Amino acid sequence: MSKAADDEGVPGGRGEPPGTSAQQLGGEAAGGKLPSKLSASSFTPGWTKVSCPCCASERVEPLVRVKLGPKVVPETKRWLIKLIGAPQKDGGAGLLAHPGEDATGNIIMLSAPRCTLLRATEELGLCKIYHNNEMEAFAYNDRDNFRDSDNMEVFLTLAERQYIIKYELDGLRAQKDLKIPGMPDSRTLQKRDNIWQKLGQAGVIVDTFPLHNPGKLKDLSKSWYSGNQLAQPLDKVNEYFGSSVAFYFSFLDFYTWSLLPPAILGLFIAYFSREVQREMLQSVSGSQQEEVQDDPEPLISGHMLQAVFSMLWSTVVIELWKRRSSSLSYQWGTLNLAERFAEPRPGFHGDLGVNPVTGRVEPLFPEWKRDLRMALVSVPVVGLFLGLVVLGMMCFYWAEARVQWLHKDWNSMISQTFLYVPSVLHILYTNMLANLYRTVANSLTEYENHREESAYDNHLTGKILVFTFFNNFAVLFHIAFFKQDVPLLRKRLASLLIISQLVNQVTEVVIPFLVDRFISAPHRTESEDDPEEDKFRNQGTLPTFPGLFAEYIELLVQFGYLSLFSCVFPLTAVLLLLNNLTEIRSDAYKICKLFRKPFCPPVASMGVWKVAFEVLSFVSVVSNAWLLLLSPRLQKMSQEAGMSSSNLLMGAVMVEHVLILVKVIMAALIPDEPDWIRKKREHIEYTSMQALRQQKLNVQQS
Amino acid sequence: MSKAADDEGVPGGRGEPPGTSAQQLGGEAAGGKLPSKLSASSFTPGWTKVSCPCCASERVEPLVRVKLGPKVVPETKRWLIKLIGAPQKDGGAGLLAHPGEDATGNIIMLSAPRCTLLRATEELGLCKIYHNNEMEAFAYNDRDNFRDSDNMEVFLTLAERQYIIKYELDGLRAQKDLKIPGMPDSRTLQKRDNIWQKLGQAGVIVDTFPLHNPGKLKDLSKSWYSGNQLAQPLDKVNEYFGSSVAFYFSFLDFYTWSLLPPAILGLFIAYFSREVQREMLQSVSGSQQEEVQDDPEPLISGHMLQAVFSMLWSTVVIELWKRRSSSLSYQWGTLNLAERFAEPRPGFHGDLGVNPVTGRVEPLFPEWKRDLRMALVSVPVVGLFLGLVVLGMMCFYWAEARVQWLHKDWNSMISQTFLYVPSVLHILYTNMLANLYRTVANSLTEYENHREESAYDNHLTGKILVFTFFNNFAVLFHIAFFKQDVPLLRKRLASLLIISQLVNQVTEVVIPFLVDRFISAPHRTESEDDPEEDKFRNQGTLPTFPGLFAEYIELLVQFGYLSLFSCVFPLTAVLLLLNNLTEIRSDAYKICKLFRKPFCPPVASMGVWKVAFEVLSFVSVVSNAWLLLLSPRLQKMSQEAGMSSSNLLMGAVMVEHVLILVKVIMAALIPDEPDWIRKKREHIEYTSMQALRQQKLNVQQS
Repeated sequence: MSKAADDEGVPGGRGEPPGTSAQQLGGEAAGGKLPSKLSASSFTPGWTKVSCPCCASERVEPLVRVKLGPKVVPETKRWLIKLIGAPQKDGGAGLLAHPGEDATGNIIMLSAPRCTLLRATEELGLCKIYHNNEMEAFAYNDRDNFRDSDNMEVFLTLAERQYIIKYELDGLRAQKDLKIPGMPDSRTLQKRDNIWQKLGQAGVIVDTFPLHNPGKLKDLSKSWYSGNQLAQPLDKVNEYFGSSVAFYFSFLDFYTWSLLPPAILGLFIAYFSREVQREMLQSVSGSQQEEVQDDPEPLISGHMLQAVFSMLWSTVVIELWKRRSSSLSYQWGTLNLAERFAEPRPGFHGDLGVNPVTGRVEPLFPEWKRDLRMALVSVPVVGLFLGLVVLGMMCFYWAEARVQWLHKDWNSMISQTFLYVPSVLHILYTNMLANLYRTVANSLTEYENHREESAYDNHLTGKILVFTFFNNFAVLFHIAFFKQDVPLLRKRLASLLIISQLVNQVTEVVIPFLVDRFISAPHRTESEDDPEEDKFRNQGTLPTFPGLFAEYIELLVQFGYLSLFSCVFPLTAVLLLLNNLTEIRSDAYKICKLFRKPFCPPVASMGVWKVAFEVLSFVSVVSNAWLLLLSPRLQKMSQEAGMSSSNLLMGAVMVEHVLILVKVIMAALIPDEPDWIRKKREHIEYTSMQALRQQKLNVQQS
Repeated sequence: MSKAADDEGVPGGRGEPPGTSAQQLGGEAAGGKLPSKLSASSFTPGWTKVSCPCCASERVEPLVRVKLGPKVVPETKRWLIKLIGAPQKDGGAGLLAHPGEDATGNIIMLSAPRCTLLRATEELGLCKIYHNNEMEAFAYNDRDNFRDSDNMEVFLTLAERQYIIKYELDGLRAQKDLKIPGMPDSRTLQKRDNIWQKLGQAGVIVDTFPLHNPGKLKDLSKSWYSGNQLAQPLDKVNEYFGSSVAFYFSFLDFYTWSLLPPAILGLFIAYFSREVQREMLQSVSGSQQEEVQDDPEPLISGHMLQAVFSMLWSTVVIELWKRRSSSLSYQWGTLNLAERFAEPRPGFHGDLGVNPVTGRVEPLFPEWKRDLRMALVSVPVVGLFLGLVVLGMMCFYWAEARVQWLHKDWNSMISQTFLYVPSVLHILYTNMLANLYRTVANSLTEYENHREESAYDNHLTGKILVFTFFNNFAVLFHIAFFKQDVPLLRKRLASLLIISQLVNQVTEVVIPFLVDRFISAPHRTESEDDPEEDKFRNQGTLPTFPGLFAEYIELLVQFGYLSLFSCVFPLTAVLLLLNNLTEIRSDAYKICKLFRKPFCPPVASMGVWKVAFEVLSFVSVVSNAWLLLLSPRLQKMSQEAGMSSSNLLMGAVMVEHVLILVKVIMAALIPDEPDWIRKKREHIEYTSMQALRQQKLNVQQS
């Protein structure tokens, strides 16, 4: 049986891969232990040999699929499999490779033996449950004291195991100058070249992606979006997709629930305040009705109440999220990540030198040079693009005014069509600019040469974020601050909310559903009876997961609408709450069914997004103070009291300053992490301080 | 000789103290090795015995003097000396005690043996120079690898040695219920009672203070304030007085030099801008001269230039100081203090329990309870007092207006004297309030029950600081923001600067000099020929050092004048620069000559003062934006351009927001510690992480 599997594994007789001899332990056990539909464990024969006896396991679970280029010859594939399977001390990745059973032969399946997984767990700085039930930073040498450290499928989450494979592949570096076998001579690897990156550039490797686990996926989807449950299975999401995805869904969850207070307040205001009802009616009907007033209005209008509430609410939400986030990070073992101390990310370059922190030889790049590049190149370029957005908006307003003037003058069919020209041109311009900016942001961040993957991601995200945010809110800010037109702002906000939510629901719920029903589903039923390997091939046809940027930015824009402008339209929170309740499910459905599984590095928080939400919550004070000033009630009151407009403005500025002060004090007083986590962190610090002393002594004595 | 010294040591035949047998090693060497005038090392006989042989040194340097109450009987004194001399494992302080040679017999001299010093160095978390020339956290077990660890007078600074004695005394706790020998039965110590605190309350101990070292003091004063040198000997100050004093003088130094740019700008503006000359003339002469205008004025006035400069300058100064501060902290070995992990401070109380961080049994007090106390008691009480200040100011203004109206009405001699009544009452009220507040702040901070000495100090300082600051600036803010009267502000600022500096110079230079010349000096010459012990007795007659609060608040108020209001009076920086150049010397003189040497705990930074200066630099943006708006030039320009005052105000608010943004970005971009320190810190983190893993493994293997 093991021989047969081998022959299937290398179809077309392209020569025997180096790892054909099946592992003796796993050959027969694989099929019997687990139902083949739920696990993908029938591959044990055909895997490369493991180098240490402890890693020989009964079955090997294929975790990652590598797709080779169409022109790759068997010689190159053999070399690659050997490289992947070689132990790390010989310059290999220390992984398990399988030549695959695909007819075209351009596939390699990867898995990881126990030792490699455990060593990488230590390198990444993941925390796992120690024998005393505390989370402790994992140490390879101390592995026997960690719970379940003999069973990798329990000890590490699926996402961690898959990420570790990517981590090892990205860490492959040529130990000497090397010609790639079976490739033209022009393609050589130089010493310390990043092999995986170079092979990708050379077209040898087309794709590397983690595989779905159908059984677990079915289980997850059942408890996530199929039923009517309110809570999300966040731990399971972390287990299956990894902490970055789990953080997004946790935040979505947290944020959705925190919409309840403003939603209730909004409903209350909308129901009781006739003023708001009249205004909302106006904003929907678009006509300025004559104000009919029969009984005295209360001193504080809903508008003002909502403005003050928004300011405080946004601070409290963000502060509480920080606490929740650090609890989650502790629970998922990512509180203590050691990315700073690990190898630099693949794209990082610099002069070879000794890292003063870890003492390892690796490329070094001085901090001040990076700062200089950011200050002198990145910041001006980003500023330029923001300027172009403003310029575009100004041109649009100018052209619109011009065209309307022309239309009034001519009043013909031609001039009527002209009315749409500025809008169309502006949309085209904005889109072009956004695309151009994305490319520029990528190159800028690459040029900044960040050492850590997370720093790179954060700077790239930050750049795109600023631009997208500006693009989304420039018009609203313009209406609020320059035109100072509250009814227009209300109208615009309502239409943005309703339209953007309709578009969202269609693109995120209806289309995915239709695609799944009528395009994917027939395809899938066909593959139900197919052999296991076909399932993996199908996954290759799915589109790549586009990342969480679009999801986060949607939440950020929502949060912006709510915290910045919601006082002019009290039902904002209600609409958002309704939207998010379906959003949770549609996002979950999307990531489970419609895309390939993404690689998710373990992360300790939302990273730059947390900062973005925090900044927004500060801007909300300014914006709300301003809208408070524009509130019709206040304007009327001040007119009646004979206050000058500059006195009123001064009052608003004072209110703003006091509220910013309150916000800063609140942010300082609410600790960012719960007390019990602070204690655990300090305990770790204390024990490592003690250990350092002990170690020095031991070194000295020996 | 040793016997004779003993007899002198216990005058009046009050019985033999327990440690009378002189140390064999030191008996004869003491006098010969060092000239007796420079060192106080002639006491070696009479000291208590040390418990371990390594600590037996040739000479013992008296470091701290304890003064007992007048009614203390010899029995109590003997018991106390025994307690101080007993090893720590037996519940003693592990120090060296000497019954003293004072005729009244109510004095104990203290010193510390090597082992106690080294162990305390580890407990405090001080860094010392390792054999590889790096600063490393000291570890007792690894002591031989630290440079100079066999010579305590080089290894530890004088201030550190003296502080360690206080630290050990404060750490004395009763191991069981205990009656104090020779005291009435009502005075008993309960288990875990803080002995030193209880003895103080019982009147047994009146005073504990560190001794000056005349030789070192002479040396220090020569290089500090006697000559014409510009630089201060900061390392020597740290060595002699400890890091908290050294941090104050470093900041004073840094701040004084950073006054140069605004001083130059101020002189430049004062010289070239006729406008300013006219205004300053007005402020001095007090008369509103007719404005004579013959040539066109520049678009940007000195007023505006100075306002914008002040905002940016204050940020840059504070950010650069943070970097300087962390370098100093590294240099002085206080970067890594372990106060969090040490025993709680003496006044701390709580239920006994196991500290989750260190695993030691000690009193615990939950964090949330402290937060609650601060939020529900401290904050409202402090707010109440601030309200009382405002109330006082309002009453004063009301009374003044009232009295002036009366005076105009009556115009008599009686009404003339009435004119002074409001001011006098206001000053009395303010002083009473300040005294009351100080008491209240002390009790509040005690009630908050902080675990660490530094937290206690910071909260106490913070409370008094807010009040003092409010007291100092309330009037200026009132003039600037409510009266909006720039000439009055200028007049008031100029007079405050000149008067406060005159007062300062008198109290800090002239009076100390006179005191020293005519009161202390005769006293001193008399003691020149006296035996050593008399010098120590003289130190006891000096007043206690009042702490650095007054010095810091003076700098803070200066910094406030400069950064908040200097644009209305460009010569502020020049005056402050002149003042500070003498201030450095007079402060140095004061601390060296006029007070007892203070105990200074090792600190890593200026603590709460850094925060205060930072907050001030933010407030300066608001105040400068406002003064910019009030600038006469801008007001005239806007009138000429026909701008409405509310548009102008809006412009100022926008400028303010942009500048706050610039400030926040600058503060975020300038790293708080230099790159090389960040690397060292990360290196320490990395090695302790590694060591922790190693240790776990060792524990497991053994």
